[in-house]
Amino acid sequence: MQFASDNSGPALPAVMQAMADVNIGHMPSYGGEAPMEEVRDRLRALFEAPQASVYLVATGTAANALALATLSEPWQTVFCTPLAHIHTDECNAPEFFTGGAKLSLVGEADMMTPEDLSRAIAAWPAGDVHNPQHGPLALTQATERGRIYTCAEISALTQVARDHGLPCYMDGARFANAVAALGCTPAEMTWRAGINAVSMGGTKNGCLGVEAVIFFNPENAWEFELRRKRAAHLVSKHRYLSAQMLGYLHDDLWLKTAQQANARAAILEAGLRDIPQVEMVFERAVNMIFARLPRATHQRLKAAGAVYALYEGPLENGPKDEPLMARFVCDWSVSEAQIAQFLEIARG
Amino acid sequence: MQFASDNSGPALPAVMQAMADVNIGHMPSYGGEAPMEEVRDRLRALFEAPQASVYLVATGTAANALALATLSEPWQTVFCTPLAHIHTDECNAPEFFTGGAKLSLVGEADMMTPEDLSRAIAAWPAGDVHNPQHGPLALTQATERGRIYTCAEISALTQVARDHGLPCYMDGARFANAVAALGCTPAEMTWRAGINAVSMGGTKNGCLGVEAVIFFNPENAWEFELRRKRAAHLVSKHRYLSAQMLGYLHDDLWLKTAQQANARAAILEAGLRDIPQVEMVFERAVNMIFARLPRATHQRLKAAGAVYALYEGPLENGPKDEPLMARFVCDWSVSEAQIAQFLEIARG
Amino acid sequence: MQFASDNSGPALPAVMQAMADVNIGHMPSYGGEAPMEEVRDRLRALFEAPQASVYLVATGTAANALALATLSEPWQTVFCTPLAHIHTDECNAPEFFTGGAKLSLVGEADMMTPEDLSRAIAAWPAGDVHNPQHGPLALTQATERGRIYTCAEISALTQVARDHGLPCYMDGARFANAVAALGCTPAEMTWRAGINAVSMGGTKNGCLGVEAVIFFNPENAWEFELRRKRAAHLVSKHRYLSAQMLGYLHDDLWLKTAQQANARAAILEAGLRDIPQVEMVFERAVNMIFARLPRATHQRLKAAGAVYALYEGPLENGPKDEPLMARFVCDWSVSEAQIAQFLEIARG
Amino acid sequence: MQFASDNSGPALPAVMQAMADVNIGHMPSYGGEAPMEEVRDRLRALFEAPQASVYLVATGTAANALALATLSEPWQTVFCTPLAHIHTDECNAPEFFTGGAKLSLVGEADMMTPEDLSRAIAAWPAGDVHNPQHGPLALTQATERGRIYTCAEISALTQVARDHGLPCYMDGARFANAVAALGCTPAEMTWRAGINAVSMGGTKNGCLGVEAVIFFNPENAWEFELRRKRAAHLVSKHRYLSAQMLGYLHDDLWLKTAQQANARAAILEAGLRDIPQVEMVFERAVNMIFARLPRATHQRLKAAGAVYALYEGPLENGPKDEPLMARFVCDWSVSEAQIAQFLEIARG
Repeated sequence: MQFASDNSGPALPAVMQAMADVNIGHMPSYGGEAPMEEVRDRLRALFEAPQASVYLVATGTAANALALATLSEPWQTVFCTPLAHIHTDECNAPEFFTGGAKLSLVGEADMMTPEDLSRAIAAWPAGDVHNPQHGPLALTQATERGRIYTCAEISALTQVARDHGLPCYMDGARFANAVAALGCTPAEMTWRAGINAVSMGGTKNGCLGVEAVIFFNPENAWEFELRRKRAAHLVSKHRYLSAQMLGYLHDDLWLKTAQQANARAAILEAGLRDIPQVEMVFERAVNMIFARLPRATHQRLKAAGAVYALYEGPLENGPKDEPLMARFVCDWSVSEAQIAQFLEIARG
Repeated sequence: MQFASDNSGPALPAVMQAMADVNIGHMPSYGGEAPMEEVRDRLRALFEAPQASVYLVATGTAANALALATLSEPWQTVFCTPLAHIHTDECNAPEFFTGGAKLSLVGEADMMTPEDLSRAIAAWPAGDVHNPQHGPLALTQATERGRIYTCAEISALTQVARDHGLPCYMDGARFANAVAALGCTPAEMTWRAGINAVSMGGTKNGCLGVEAVIFFNPENAWEFELRRKRAAHLVSKHRYLSAQMLGYLHDDLWLKTAQQANARAAILEAGLRDIPQVEMVFERAVNMIFARLPRATHQRLKAAGAVYALYEGPLENGPKDEPLMARFVCDWSVSEAQIAQFLEIARG
Repeated sequence: MQFASDNSGPALPAVMQAMADVNIGHMPSYGGEAPMEEVRDRLRALFEAPQASVYLVATGTAANALALATLSEPWQTVFCTPLAHIHTDECNAPEFFTGGAKLSLVGEADMMTPEDLSRAIAAWPAGDVHNPQHGPLALTQATERGRIYTCAEISALTQVARDHGLPCYMDGARFANAVAALGCTPAEMTWRAGINAVSMGGTKNGCLGVEAVIFFNPENAWEFELRRKRAAHLVSKHRYLSAQMLGYLHDDLWLKTAQQANARAAILEAGLRDIPQVEMVFERAVNMIFARLPRATHQRLKAAGAVYALYEGPLENGPKDEPLMARFVCDWSVSEAQIAQFLEIARG
Repeated sequence: MQFASDNSGPALPAVMQAMADVNIGHMPSYGGEAPMEEVRDRLRALFEAPQASVYLVATGTAANALALATLSEPWQTVFCTPLAHIHTDECNAPEFFTGGAKLSLVGEADMMTPEDLSRAIAAWPAGDVHNPQHGPLALTQATERGRIYTCAEISALTQVARDHGLPCYMDGARFANAVAALGCTPAEMTWRAGINAVSMGGTKNGCLGVEAVIFFNPENAWEFELRRKRAAHLVSKHRYLSAQMLGYLHDDLWLKTAQQANARAAILEAGLRDIPQVEMVFERAVNMIFARLPRATHQRLKAAGAVYALYEGPLENGPKDEPLMARFVCDWSVSEAQIAQFLEIARG
């Protein structure tokens, strides 16, 4: 009963096979290998963006921090939500990679509205040398609470940014899950909605460790390459990143895997909603559920070996019926049997 | 005929198998998984250093830059040679990770003597707020020109550093090749010779992408972990780094692989020395050869498809007999037949 | 009618004279001059802190950013209010000088309570490598809205910080005004209340440009000196900083000047309170007043040449009686006649 | 007998008077004051550069580090000599301000030739992501050893830089002394010779602490302003920088002061050359002399109270006739009588 995170599960067999397939003979390193050429072609086709610059890195934080650094200046502020991964979970990586830019927090929790964004931008007067200057908008899709913006909502947010001349970045650590949930195309959710650069995560969705970073505006390309190199994120035996991504893209595996993970989470959600004492905290859209369960239920689940993140506590002491928030993530490998077992224990 | 680099070849089958073996079920991420526990135990045993802090990262530049940043302050200067990888091939990664430390160049080419080091340290008066302050010594073993320091030479260099209170780092991208060439133990070449922190490279010696960073002084541990995280080098599905390293360490594979690569380079060297017009530039010790061959020989080799780095040129135009320096690297997968073919063409 | 800022007025005659007095002959530079020895002695005596490290810099932002960088690490977060000068008015200087630390915003507006601080610290779990680590507390005294913490309030806040092992910094750009308002000693408002380092501003209180930075813990001294030098804030002809500070300290000029500025602001405040349509926004404690006046009143004042910062607008268009917030600052040189003239116009 | 440095002497009376003249009433701060407008006009006229962007800062290191940061990227390398002030005497300020750029050392000692520069640029292959990228050329004029480049030599050096698309910066801490020595105009020594940005030092030549930074290409202006602010070098009571510069520029005081300092050094040089055991180390051009004097002579001079920097030693022990290098700097305030007294003691 493993619901801790979508980075605690195994890699997809097809991705492992792609790694093995590429492990033959010598080839150029540092991204000069033929498989990377194919990655570029396939991602450009997938995003309907023939001019896009396409890169691979091994971690989501690298994707975020390098892309934001490329889109911003050290004296600027990035606009993101208070629960944005770049703010809460990267130990100041964006501040490090940007050379000391600030993150201004917009909206409540994990989402923002155009009004929130307008207000946050207006809080820093334009052209005043004393305060931080306006920098990029950073959205997470799906969000850190498992919710999603519609393409229209993304467009409305990027329109505000564009009105101020600001570039727009999408942290797509769960990009595939969002596309699967929306039923849209990658292009619709990104450049057609005003996004200038996006990370398309592979790691959480069945790869070993690979994220694509795509700039729809090719003028950022060379700077990104230099930033990646000096941040030690240009992998020498790059073929193993390319191979993962090829396996991931082949035959829509990226999308099917996300659909499966989302579907499993839907089963879990439905089961939880049937339990009277369970309260959903955020509207589930992808493969993550935030819910409050009574302490006694948590005690039962943990005792039975269920693994997931408890956000409130303590587990041991307190009223049995006090609701405590937890996060449940389904990766592709979680079985329906596991979910059924979990729900049975939860029902008590 | 592939002699371009030891990062252009494939990964060892045993390492690939170790990756597959670990690809089962859920486990903690970010280095909390059981295989990493085993890596720690094995490396501590191998280095005879039970208190050492042990970390894995995916690139050699990350290992170098993170370790040096941990050992230095932004207002200090690192001491390294003019051909040190950290100076010439990392696009200012050390300057970035240290927050703006300087690299002071010591000695000629790829090696330094204790006298060189003493002179370089003395060039920056101690305790003067105006000039860069003394920071760590950084040695590369084997060096960027395929040479090695003896353990006594390392001791003599670290003694100079210690006399000034400076920590000592060893860039061991080709650590295994150096141990194989010296016939010493990892402990003898590192902490017993005064080294405070070392990277033990796996990538160039048959892994996909993994480097161990070992601090013999555990007081640096937590800072390194924070630096690794905020540099986006803490891998989430960390099991795939651990698995590589376990496969690499099992049954002395790391050492045997290096011995094989060195032996292949010895065959190539012997063959080249038999050719009258070939001049060896550096004394070969490991799996790299720097030699000058006549332009006509290079033209023949390149036309036949040999792949290697030509350091002088141009290839096409100039006297046929003008000697041009090149680098030839043997990785574990280069066959004796390829070497024989190469030498036959080289002999003309 | 000049109420724009306490850095738009002239320097005190005694400070100018001190500059002239020191302009004789040669003396060591970079703080090695005899007048700096005297500054150190006098400030240590004033603060009843014989072991304190004492430095001078030319700007308040330099004092703040250098002190905070000395007290923090790049992977930490500083705790300050949303209206802290270091957050709103230094164009990311703290992020720059610290090498990329984050500023976490505590409380509302310009002040925080111990509960606010406890909550903000708890929001970042201790010892978790993923989120920013706990760094220094930064208080501004007097605050950016002209209010002050009592010594007991400062003690309560620093106690929370100390419970988490965090150092405490006081931005004392208007240090003298706060001491004058509280009627306490410098020691009582700083180290006796748990402050580890403080800036004592001279610039806004009658100097040309000088701020003292005082570390009560001398272990920070050498690092601060190196940071000051590499930030280009070690002034070569340092005697002119020392002379300003000597003139400022002589015969309690620093305190008398602040008392005079506060008293002038009290007159202005009393006059404004007498005007029915005027609403005080913050409780005045020092030499700054934040008040809402009707648009028509602002139009009259501006037309008559009054200079001050209007925080809401626009001035020209809108209902005549709409209240618009403005800031009125009295420096030492504002005369009672100017204030009377201003009030007369304000009264309409 | 004060020859230690041109920043250990007093300020010019006319500069002090200009400070007093501006100390009246309120005026805008942060460079918005009327005197700064006049500074801009006068420097644009002096440099025959009506479009130039003109700024003032308080230290030479700030001028250098801010200008170089504006002209470079963190992944680039600045080209300068091994004795450049930015390399040896700024405690890594350029590395700090640029965000981690490297300094590549060109030529020997304090000067470089076009051939030196070409070689140094060629050492880093263009367009290779692995090595540092080409950044600005930084010349010091007059140099750190008191020598000067002719305008033709500057043109030849900047031509090499321009051939590689690199901007050219001149550290003019002793700008006036160089102009005085060459008898050229400021324009001839800067933009007409290919310089893109220059600092024109006031501090060493009779001011309290002010340096002008001039960008002949106005596109760098706003970035410089933001960099200056976030580096805490935007002075609030900016009028006192402006006043210094106005006093300095009035009636060619800057040039006359430098001529006087150079002339005094010429007297000292002539006297030293008459002493048989004295050896000149560098060709004197401005107000600095580097010479070797016998140990016994140094002992006599120091015992008599002469103040200057001894570069070799030790003073006390060793052969009486061993030549030891020293630096002698004449600032404007050194009298002919002091020089005569010094020479008399030196002659023994």
